[in-house]
Amino acid sequence: MITRINSSQRMSQAVKHNGIVYLAGQVGTAGDSVAQQTRQCLQKVENLLSDAGSSKSQILQAIIWLDDMADFNEMNQVWDSWMTQANAPARATGEARLANPDLKVEIIVTAACAQ
Amino acid sequence: MITRINSSQRMSQAVKHNGIVYLAGQVGTAGDSVAQQTRQCLQKVENLLSDAGSSKSQILQAIIWLDDMADFNEMNQVWDSWMTQANAPARATGEARLANPDLKVEIIVTAACAQ
Amino acid sequence: MITRINSSQRMSQAVKHNGIVYLAGQVGTAGDSVAQQTRQCLQKVENLLSDAGSSKSQILQAIIWLDDMADFNEMNQVWDSWMTQANAPARATGEARLANPDLKVEIIVTAACAQ
Repeated sequence: MITRINSSQRMSQAVKHNGIVYLAGQVGTAGDSVAQQTRQCLQKVENLLSDAGSSKSQILQAIIWLDDMADFNEMNQVWDSWMTQANAPARATGEARLANPDLKVEIIVTAACAQ
Repeated sequence: MITRINSSQRMSQAVKHNGIVYLAGQVGTAGDSVAQQTRQCLQKVENLLSDAGSSKSQILQAIIWLDDMADFNEMNQVWDSWMTQANAPARATGEARLANPDLKVEIIVTAACAQ
Repeated sequence: MITRINSSQRMSQAVKHNGIVYLAGQVGTAGDSVAQQTRQCLQKVENLLSDAGSSKSQILQAIIWLDDMADFNEMNQVWDSWMTQANAPARATGEARLANPDLKVEIIVTAACAQ
């Protein structure tokens, strides 16, 4: 069974299947700082994981896209204060322009969840 | 058990394992318009999903790479006419140069399938 | 149950859950050639898969980021000599700047593994 959360014609913000939840790429508020946008992304991730019966302690993989790799340290400061070693997922970070030039970071999460 | 579909030395176009099918990044015909290439990608996705015992109603996640984010709306018009709210996957779109400079869009799909 | 391998505050190099292992993006030695970095990435992938009770014959999906798509052929020569048609995963390659400007290639692997 596939369960979709917050769906539009284009995409669902989360899709659950067989104990895994796949989140749409989450972004913050265009124009805010990298740190602010990272915090907003991670809050949205937490909210969607909660809606899916999961939590940030169950993230399996995170793919991070930065508009500018020069923002790597600023993003990581927020990430590192949010994550703990006991819960740390597999992660990869690459540079990619995002849908809006004022978006600085997008985070794509896959997590374990209740069946 | 792992089942591979359309394999070469380099990659398989689809790999099935435990009720999930992972598709290779699908591209259209180099030099065609963004809309045309998007339609070609999505047709290839449908064909591979069919080969794997899946369908576009079972897509869990789609990662879209655009050569130029200025093509976002043109790609979305094709996507939106192809997708329905009831089936919409988690999705993320970033800008990335592709293997050939005349390729405008690449779509990477993960879907549920028959075991 | 989630099992994490080589974890730091920021990320784990591998995360196992329900017969799947998700690897962090693997990179080689900054400043080495594309061929050398690709070999180093693939050796790290093999080592992590071994640690997770998996192997390169069980890779389901590989996402490859190249700093410069002009290096596509050089990367592929190493990849093709490492992979076999019987084991070939779904694969996608896009261009993305990486965390360090002297890193030329990053490989993100998902594989089947012992439960």
